[in-house]
Formats: sequence, structure tokens, C-alpha cells
Amino acid sequence: MAAAKLRLACIQLAVGAVKKDNISRAVQKISEAAAAGAHLVTLPECFNSPYGTKYFSQYAESIPGETTAALKEAAKASGVWLVGGSIPEQDGDKLYNTCTVWNPQGDMVAKHRKIHLFDISVPGGITFKESETLSPGSSFTTFDMPNCKVGVGICYDMRFAELALVYNQMGCKLLVYPGAFNMTTGPVHWELLQRGRALDNQLYVATASPARDTSADYHAWGHSTVVNPWGEVISTTEADEDIIYADLDLDYVEKVRQMVPLPVQKRNDLYQVVKK
Amino acid sequence: MAAAKLRLACIQLAVGAVKKDNISRAVQKISEAAAAGAHLVTLPECFNSPYGTKYFSQYAESIPGETTAALKEAAKASGVWLVGGSIPEQDGDKLYNTCTVWNPQGDMVAKHRKIHLFDISVPGGITFKESETLSPGSSFTTFDMPNCKVGVGICYDMRFAELALVYNQMGCKLLVYPGAFNMTTGPVHWELLQRGRALDNQLYVATASPARDTSADYHAWGHSTVVNPWGEVISTTEADEDIIYADLDLDYVEKVRQMVPLPVQKRNDLYQVVKK
Repeated sequence: MAAAKLRLACIQLAVGAVKKDNISRAVQKISEAAAAGAHLVTLPECFNSPYGTKYFSQYAESIPGETTAALKEAAKASGVWLVGGSIPEQDGDKLYNTCTVWNPQGDMVAKHRKIHLFDISVPGGITFKESETLSPGSSFTTFDMPNCKVGVGICYDMRFAELALVYNQMGCKLLVYPGAFNMTTGPVHWELLQRGRALDNQLYVATASPARDTSADYHAWGHSTVVNPWGEVISTTEADEDIIYADLDLDYVEKVRQMVPLPVQKRNDLYQVVKK
Repeated sequence: MAAAKLRLACIQLAVGAVKKDNISRAVQKISEAAAAGAHLVTLPECFNSPYGTKYFSQYAESIPGETTAALKEAAKASGVWLVGGSIPEQDGDKLYNTCTVWNPQGDMVAKHRKIHLFDISVPGGITFKESETLSPGSSFTTFDMPNCKVGVGICYDMRFAELALVYNQMGCKLLVYPGAFNMTTGPVHWELLQRGRALDNQLYVATASPARDTSADYHAWGHSTVVNPWGEVISTTEADEDIIYADLDLDYVEKVRQMVPLPVQKRNDLYQVVKK
């Protein structure tokens, strides 16, 4: 790939009740994205399991395990960087919502456990409480591609401006959030959050959602999207299964930061975002 | 006014080259907004002068001075809280882009000097360098209405997520940014920034811009806007002179923060926005 170019694919996967089918379908789509020239491929949140607190323990596995073995093999076989969406992870007596990241040699280069659990209650809309069954992670997660540092968050992590500001400080030019917003918050917040994170931090932002399954308990908003550092949507889709592609120009990140030089204009004499 | 209600008016003022005309027009519009029931009235950035580095020294005045005397009198005469947009302020040998805030008794309750100066260079779009003539302020600015703490920023200050996060920490339920975006950044960033600040901080955000004057050097984007804590635009306009109104429900701020409880979900064990 050219030094400053990065072809990104976000897989909006149709996820069903049969774990091994979800895994094989994901592997097939990774191969399809690689054949279309993707250097970096992203799966959605909770791609091997239906989304819902009652499913997490049933579908959970340790890492390494069945699902991550398939991701490792898929990254290697296709020669791509792979953000493996997320899966319910079992670690001792705890469950996490966990994203693994793989390089083209099949090495796991990062593991992100969702930091901010999805506990919300919108009357007439949606009530959900991940913390009923999941534990939160407590680490920032980035990985280094040859031409780009990438920051990882999972879904609700995207609501927290501070996380993206920290990733910006750490040098990220792309933030990837596998996510599964819903029919209440999706229409009003999903794209807005991505565009806001991109504009405030002058970097690319990408999301991958499961496709919408109206027969499931949880109806995902879909709309996997890529936003550029000027805050513009450069690739998106509706709710059905799909793969979206975007050719990221990493030089454009620097260009935007020169045009609107926020990094040198921040008033760190007055405020500071501190990473602990 | 009811304890949790606040009628806000944003005056999108037609600003010309004659200072005393700008002032008298502003005073007239304040009176009109008060007659329509506004409790809080906001003028736009640089409302007594054309916007441009070559005008700032010519139109600048000390505080108190001619313009702020008129604002004081207008707030008192109309019995409103008044965010007095901004004016070029002369203080010794320095110039600032300064907003004064007045209570219904005509007392100046706050003064904000633009913290982040507008220095950008977009090829084929706009190049502007406020710092050629202006000095930056170095203070956060809030004021307390009986039912609402309000944070104040001016235009380019809105680009900095950290400032809004600090105002959120300080207890603000409304952020007011008099501003004058342009025809390059206005269409893509003006509303996005407001919606982003509102959603991330779960508070109201209001802007007041000058009306667009295509015969002037600087073409303001206009589009004065009010956004609610759910990130939705609840009042806006196009580019002509106008007054927009919004009835803020301050209980709704708390309601949103209960539905999506970001304040208690922030991971201050991992990151923190520090006010110095």
C-alpha cells in the first residue's frame, strides 16, 4: 500500500443464533474484503452472538478460543489487519465485551475490553444494562499499523469525548468503534457521535454494526460508517448486511491539522485532558 | 418564569459599518425579544463592528464604554439577562474579542475574552488570523441565572471540546457561543459542533451569528441555532436578520442525564479533564 493510503473495510455482518455460522460467515466476509483490496478490516460488536445480556454467558469463550482462533487464521490467510469486532469473553468468573486485533501474520496485537458499559434507560425507547452480566475493562487500546496508529473503542465507549481526546494525544489518526446502536439512539446519535469525534480530533472514525435482524430481541441500527477528519461521512450504508469501504488518506489528517491547527491552539495552560 | 423554564432569544443582527447604528439596532432587537417573553437574550459576535482584523482597532473601545453603556441600559430597561455578543475591546495597548454579560438590574455579571483566537488557513476557502491584532483571554466564564448556570465562549472557542467539558464539570446547563462562522466552515461544522457539544455534555447549546452581508469583506454563515441536551436542533434560521426563540426546559437536562447517565459513568480512574 502507498505510505499514506489505507483501504478500510467495515463489515456489517448478519448475526444469527448459531455461533459457528456467525464465525464462518465473518471469515468469508473478511476474505471478500481482502479480495477487494482492504488493508484493514473491521467486524461489528458482538459478531459471534446475538446481542443481549442473557446471551453473553452462553456464547462467551476464553481468549484464545474458538472464535479468536478463526480470526487469527482469517487475518493470516487474507493478509489483512483485523479489528475483530467484539465477542463475549470469559475470564475466570468474569465476562467482558472484548475486541481482539490481529496483524497480517496472525499475531494478536491488541485486546480491548469495553471500558464504558451500556447502561441506559430511555422511557418508551430502550432499557439495557450490560453491567448486569459484564465487567468493564480498564485499559486504553491502540495498535500500530506501518502508517497509522489506531485507537479502539466499543460502541458506548464512543459516547465519551475524553476517550477520543486521549487517543488523539497518543497519536491516533483513526479510531475504530465496533458498535451496535439501537432504534432509539441510532437515528439521532450514531452518526453525530462519529462526526463529532472526527471533527474534534481531526482524524478518521469508523464504525461497524451488525446488520439489523428484526426477528432478534435487539434491533441494531446498522449504518456502519466512515467519517473523515473534516467531519464528513465518506462511506455508509443502511441496515442490511453489507461491506463498506473507504480509502483513507493519512496525509489528509495532517493537512486538516495544518488548516485548522487545533493541536497547537489548545490552551493547555487552562485545561488538560489527563491520561492516568 | 417557571423554575425550570427559560425562554432564550438569539438575535441574528444585521451589522453594518456605522457603529452607533449597530448599537441602536441591537438595543431595538433586545427590546423586541423581551417583548416576546425572552428571559435571556444573546447578541452575535462582533455586533458593533464589521468583522475583520483591520476593523478591530478602529471600532475598539474600553469597558465600560459607549457600547457596554448601551447594553447595560438595554438589559435594565427590558429586564432581561443579556449576553452581549462580543465587541473589540481596548485595554491598554491590547485588543480583545470580548463578551459582556448583564443581569436584569443592569449589572455586568461576567466578561469573557475569547480564549482561542481564530487563526486558520483553508486553501481555496478562507484564511484569517485574529492573532494579528487580538490578544487571547485566559479565563473560563460562567454566570448564574436563578435557575441555570451558563457557560460562555466566543465562536472559535466552540471548536475545543475541552472547554465545554470544563463548563459541564462546573455545572452549566446551557452554553452560549456568540459566533460568526464563514461560508467555508459554516456549512460543514457550525451545526455539527453545537450538536456535538450538546450531546457530549447533555446540556443546551445556543449560538448567535451576525446576519450575512454579502457586501462586506467577511460573509457570515448566519444560522443562529439552539440545540437541546439530546443533540437535536430545536430552533434555527437561515442567513438573514432574525430573532430565534427557544423555550428551554431545564428539568430535561436532568432527565437526559438520568436516561443516559454519562456523569456517573465517566471513567475518571482512567482519564480526567483538569481545569487549571
